[in-house]
Amino acid sequence: MTIYHARVEIRLKPAHVDPEGQTTKKALTDLNYRVEDVFTAKVYEIDLDAPSLDKAEELVDEMSRKLLANPVKDDYEFEVREVK
Amino acid sequence: MTIYHARVEIRLKPAHVDPEGQTTKKALTDLNYRVEDVFTAKVYEIDLDAPSLDKAEELVDEMSRKLLANPVKDDYEFEVREVK
Repeated sequence: MTIYHARVEIRLKPAHVDPEGQTTKKALTDLNYRVEDVFTAKVYEIDLDAPSLDKAEELVDEMSRKLLANPVKDDYEFEVREVK
Repeated sequence: MTIYHARVEIRLKPAHVDPEGQTTKKALTDLNYRVEDVFTAKVYEIDLDAPSLDKAEELVDEMSRKLLANPVKDDYEFEVREVK
């Protein structure tokens, strides 16, 4: 087996309100910053065992759909690379 | 004024335990994924008004230190670009 490093980024779908983003925007505005918009995202950095890069990508996609992202409200994207 | 787009990524300092990362690692392991390690990070995407790129970078650094990151436990990094 080989170790692969995956970076998964999860953000709310455009149609969904981002409460944390809005709260942060208000806080920054209250501190007198001229902020137009704030959006938040979550990143998971995962080291996993897999027999090949293709298989690692398949597994990370599965992990994202099954656990890391909520398919109703989240979009996700990921990159996978072999760890030398 | 010009609109700049900043991407701020905040993660725990290496010495700090990542409870969410550990919880996610356990959940993935329970789903039979061969996961070695999981770390989490937070991303803020901010659109802000500023007179120049240098000033925008200065403001984003300030925002990170004052509000977005906890200087005791967090490291942060950011990129700023002009929005065409």
